[in-house]
Parts: sequence; C-alpha cells; structure tokens
Amino acid sequence: MATVSLIEYEDANDAVRAVYDDILATRKGGFINNFWKALAHNPELLARTWQQIKAVMAPGALDPLTKEFIYIAVSVANGCEYCTHSHTAAARAKGMSPEQYAELLAVIGLAHQTNGLVTTLQVAVDDAFKAD
Amino acid sequence: MATVSLIEYEDANDAVRAVYDDILATRKGGFINNFWKALAHNPELLARTWQQIKAVMAPGALDPLTKEFIYIAVSVANGCEYCTHSHTAAARAKGMSPEQYAELLAVIGLAHQTNGLVTTLQVAVDDAFKAD
Amino acid sequence: MATVSLIEYEDANDAVRAVYDDILATRKGGFINNFWKALAHNPELLARTWQQIKAVMAPGALDPLTKEFIYIAVSVANGCEYCTHSHTAAARAKGMSPEQYAELLAVIGLAHQTNGLVTTLQVAVDDAFKAD
Amino acid sequence: MATVSLIEYEDANDAVRAVYDDILATRKGGFINNFWKALAHNPELLARTWQQIKAVMAPGALDPLTKEFIYIAVSVANGCEYCTHSHTAAARAKGMSPEQYAELLAVIGLAHQTNGLVTTLQVAVDDAFKAD
Amino acid sequence: MATVSLIEYEDANDAVRAVYDDILATRKGGFINNFWKALAHNPELLARTWQQIKAVMAPGALDPLTKEFIYIAVSVANGCEYCTHSHTAAARAKGMSPEQYAELLAVIGLAHQTNGLVTTLQVAVDDAFKAD
Amino acid sequence: MATVSLIEYEDANDAVRAVYDDILATRKGGFINNFWKALAHNPELLARTWQQIKAVMAPGALDPLTKEFIYIAVSVANGCEYCTHSHTAAARAKGMSPEQYAELLAVIGLAHQTNGLVTTLQVAVDDAFKAD
Repeated sequence: MATVSLIEYEDANDAVRAVYDDILATRKGGFINNFWKALAHNPELLARTWQQIKAVMAPGALDPLTKEFIYIAVSVANGCEYCTHSHTAAARAKGMSPEQYAELLAVIGLAHQTNGLVTTLQVAVDDAFKAD
Repeated sequence: MATVSLIEYEDANDAVRAVYDDILATRKGGFINNFWKALAHNPELLARTWQQIKAVMAPGALDPLTKEFIYIAVSVANGCEYCTHSHTAAARAKGMSPEQYAELLAVIGLAHQTNGLVTTLQVAVDDAFKAD
Repeated sequence: MATVSLIEYEDANDAVRAVYDDILATRKGGFINNFWKALAHNPELLARTWQQIKAVMAPGALDPLTKEFIYIAVSVANGCEYCTHSHTAAARAKGMSPEQYAELLAVIGLAHQTNGLVTTLQVAVDDAFKAD
Repeated sequence: MATVSLIEYEDANDAVRAVYDDILATRKGGFINNFWKALAHNPELLARTWQQIKAVMAPGALDPLTKEFIYIAVSVANGCEYCTHSHTAAARAKGMSPEQYAELLAVIGLAHQTNGLVTTLQVAVDDAFKAD
Repeated sequence: MATVSLIEYEDANDAVRAVYDDILATRKGGFINNFWKALAHNPELLARTWQQIKAVMAPGALDPLTKEFIYIAVSVANGCEYCTHSHTAAARAKGMSPEQYAELLAVIGLAHQTNGLVTTLQVAVDDAFKAD
Repeated sequence: MATVSLIEYEDANDAVRAVYDDILATRKGGFINNFWKALAHNPELLARTWQQIKAVMAPGALDPLTKEFIYIAVSVANGCEYCTHSHTAAARAKGMSPEQYAELLAVIGLAHQTNGLVTTLQVAVDDAFKAD
C-alpha cells in the first residue's frame, strides 16, 4: 500500500544494489525491509539515509539498544506505525528483554501523559531548567 | 503564562503539601518546579501523577538516565517545550555527558527524518516485523 | 512575534472592518484578539474562518461549553499555545468551573497516556468497534 | 499486528484476571478489548491504567459522554486509530446521537484548521487570555 | 473501517447529490472518493468543506500542483494515511513527475529532521526572523 | 533559552568555522542563525546537517521557493516555532509575495482541517489511490 512500488534486488540498478549489499553485510542474517525498497526510487536519498543510520546508530556514548529505545519513543509520538514495528523488532534483535520493554512502554505512556498535562496548563519553564 | 495560578508551598493545603514534601525528600536538594505548582489545583491528580512518576522512573530493568532519554524523545516529538527543558535538566542531573547528549540529539533527529520519509511513502509493515 | 504585522481596526479596509464589527457584535463586551488581526491580511480567509466559527460553535446538539472543551483538547494535542490559551479563556467566559477544568485536564492527560500506550503496542482495532 | 501477543482470559495470571473481572463487572455486557490484552504483559501497568480510567472517566463535574468527546478529540489529534475507534464506540454506547457526532466532527475539523492557521502565523497570546 | 457507513450516490439525499454532482463535474473523469461518502452524513459540513477545497485549491498565486505538495507535507506531518494517499494521487493526476516526487520526499524528510533537532535544542528565534 | 549555549564564530573550533564559512558564502549577505550555533556542539552533526540542507534545498525538479513552502508546511504541522519563523523568513528572502503567503496559509489551514475530519472518520483509502 506504499505510494510507490517496491524495488527488489533483482530490479535494482547498481547504485541501489551497492546500498542493499551494504545493508545485508552490516546486518548479518538480515534482509532488505520495505522502507529501503520504497526509498530506492531515489538512489541518492537511499544512500544518504543509510549512511546516516549506520553512523548514528553505531555504538558510541550511547549503546545501540538505548538508541533503539529512543527511536521507538520518537516513532510512537509521531504516530509512525512502520517505524514503531521495525524498531521494536530491532530492539528485540539487539537483546531487549520483556522487562525492559515493559518499562519502555510505561515511560512512553507517562511522558505522553505529562506532556498533555503540561501543554493544557501551559506551564512556564522554570529558570533553573534553562541552560543559557 | 500558565492557564492557572501557581500554588506555592505556603499557600498549599495539607494534601498538596504532603506531595510537595515527598518530592523534596525524594529529589534531594531539589525544588518544587512549576509543573507541580500548576497541577496542585487538583490535589488528587497531583498525587496520582507524582506516585506514577516515582514508580515509573525508579531504577528497574532500565536505568533512570535511559528513562530520561526516552522521556526527552517523547517530549520533543510532542512539541512540549517545558517537558523538553525539564527532562534535559533531569538527565544532566543524573549524569548525562555532553557526548551522550550529542548522540541523543542525533538519534532524535534521525528518527524524525525516517518517520517523515516512511509516512510520505506509506510503507507497509514487513511480515518479519510482526509479533503476532 | 507573529510572521505578519497585526492589522488594527483603524488601519483595516472595509471588508476587514465588517468582520471585526460582527465579531464585536457577536461577542458582547469582547475585543478583536490577535488571531483575527493577523488573519486580516487575507480578508477572504478572515471572513470564511469567522463564518465557520460562528456556525460551528453556536448552540446545537452540543452546547457551546462542551464545544470549547473539545477545542481545547484538540489544541493541546496539536501543541498550539495560542489556541490553548484563547479557548481556555473562552471556556471560562462560558462558565467553565474549576471542577470542570480539573476533570478536563485529567481526561486530556489520560487520553494522551493511553494514546501513547496503544501506539507503542500497535493494538489492532477490535471488530466490535467497527461501524461498517 | 500488535508488537506483543494478546493475553486471553484463560491464559492470564491471577493479577491480570482480577483486572479483567473488574472491567467486565464495570462495563456490563462488555468484553475485554485488545488494548487490555496487550497491556496484560505488564500486570502493574494494566492495573494502574484501569484504575486511572475508572477514576477519571466516572461521572463528576463533567458527564461521561462529554469525557468521551474530549477523549476522541485528543485521540484524533494524536493520530491514534485504535483510540479513535474505541472511544467513538464508547461514546455511542453512552448515548451519542448522530447529531452530536456531526457537531463533534465539525468542531474537531475547525479546531485543526485554526490550530494550523495560528501556528503558521505564530500569533502571540493576547494579554487578556493570560491567567497569571 | 470508517466510524460511519459510506453514503453512495443512489442513497444520497438531494443536498448531498448536489455536492457529488459538482465534484464529478469539477474533477472530470473523477469519482466520489470515500472521504466525501463518509462526510455526507453531515450535508452542511460536506457542502462547506467542498466549497472551501474548490476555492483554496484553485489556481491563484500558487499553482494547483504546488498546493498539492503543501497538502501532502501537512498530511504526512499529521500522520494522516488517507490524506497522504489521496493527495499523492492528486499530485500525480496534476502532473507531478517522479523527479519532483523524489525531491518532495527529500524536503519532507529533511524538515522533519531539523524540526526534531531544533525542538530538542529549544533554539530561540533569531531577531532577524521576526516580522513585527 | 536553548538547552545548550550558542557557539559564536570567535569561540568555534576549526571544523565548526569551516561550516560557518560555507554557510556565509552560500547565503550571501546572511548570518549564522541560532540553530547552527546550538548544533555546533556536535561538529559532525553540524556538518552533515548543513551538507544535507545544501543538497536538498538546491534548485532541481522543484524550485527553491516551492521547497520553502513545503518546509513551512511540515514545520507548522510539527509545531516547530523556530522552524516556522526561519523558513517563513527564508521564503520571503527567496521572493515569496504576500499573495503567495496568503494562499500558502489557506492551504495549510485547509489541510489541517481535512486531516482532522478524515482521522475522526477513519476513512479507508480508496483502491484508486493506491500505487501498488
């Protein structure tokens, strides 16, 4: 039901295949999910987005699983069904336990609630919270 | 600029003071921030929300700092200025390093971008991502 | 801080003044608030929006105060600071009691929370909830 | 298509069954809808969320049907498909007439429009709308 | 899966048929899409919305295709699946090329990203950007 | 009121200055706006974001002004005050006329309204709108 057709590996041009190959090499045992097949209509955007994900989601000051929690939180708040499913699956693949998921869920629910309360009340930011 | 006045400690009734006291005792060296002073018009909601935050944000399968990252991510995506400021301050108080903040920022930005791309393309969820 | 200047009554052309006059006549004791003064750069959009508000917010199967509650709920969820303030003021002008506001706040907070929980869990709609 | 399996009554533990029983007793003639079956993986969050809904949605200064209107408005603006369906069904079960639904729809549409106009124009809040 | 039944032409009353006829006459070779069939339960809202679309989407200072790009951008950011599909189809019907779609997609993705970055950082508006 | 301090040119390291210089060279007569000064705490993200903006917003199948309209539309729907101001200023700098702005505003308002109506009604996507 995408707005464009999905480009399979065998129908992809060389630029797209190079990205597909790198995705498969990076995510051992993985597959090319629909997002990339839809994005492949724009090989430049495909390559740039994949490079960005590879750079940003790599281990660093935050570990990859923590990054998936953050990704899920954003995707839920933005109402992105696909992203919520794909990053929940990614978090599980990176070792998220049921207990961690239960707490992630509770924090997301709580944050939505207090976001709603604060915005209704239009609370002004305390001076103590300001950095500059 | 809140839609209600802020209730200071000295003007609070006993039910509100009990919550304020518990906030101060739990957050050593802290203060009552504006959110609670606005919520205090509804002592029951104040008490319930505080109890919920205490329960959900406590150490568990996820550590408190990770929970703040998730909270910030939701607050940003919901466009809640107050919540973004207060939970960024909370994350710093819990030890967030500049390097961690830099990566948090990059993940939030990236997630917003791919949320936007996926929703534009209306990509269907891969079967492999479905849990049931 | 609007993206356009605000057009005051004395600087308005006849088409804009006609709308301003009708706003003042409809909202006895009222004033022209900033929204209209910004919208006045587009007299046609100004007139159409005002006509729509007059028609939709009039007493009908739902009373005007209930309509303000709904308006506030949408405005909060959309993160519209101006709309939240102006419709909270409008609800008060139409008789909203502190007890009603306290419950409105609690419902909005709760709805945000369960929205967040449901979207995280990607719950499928029960057949029993479908109308067609 | 939820991110977790749905826990049916016969597979539920005692803590979950206690909540399910209370839902069925409170909503005479009702059933356990999918939201609760997904949430049941976290019995504590299940119990807390149900207690909160029972408390907040009970008759008070606002009647239960008005609370459903507010709930629908939030759910629509947050783009929550499940919540929109379930609370529209709940509103109907509580007596919402087609005429009321028609007006609810019109108010939600109007509020979205003026939210969009105001945010585009970045209109500053009038002093007269400020409570403090 | 709409919350109301869809009203087909043969079941529509005269007021609804008049709008349907005008839609068919305006969009040569077109059809009555589901949105109108659901909205037809409220003939007044149906007529007003159609009149508004006809007026706003007509050629003017912006050409109709540019207006569809803007419509898609809003619909994506609001997470409206139906609107994203219907206005992408409309843009194609008005001549959107694959190259234009590729760039539209890239701009929408980029805007989401910088929106997320700016909101995380809570950047204050530069004086130079203010109009008043 | 940003969550980080703003890094001025004279305090910037070489990597940041290189981006600042390129921004000033690209936007003749321009200045370094606050977004970049806040992002400069992460020189890599600063450079990547600037490169992305330069590539995406350049003339192509869509002209730069049309791209600004799309950017504004996304920013409004996401409730990003800074982005709405900065891209409205950018559109004006690229020649947006008052008449174009008036129509942009009307389309954004309309799209929000029908997004709200469609989501309330949960209208199913017509088969004719589907690309695959």
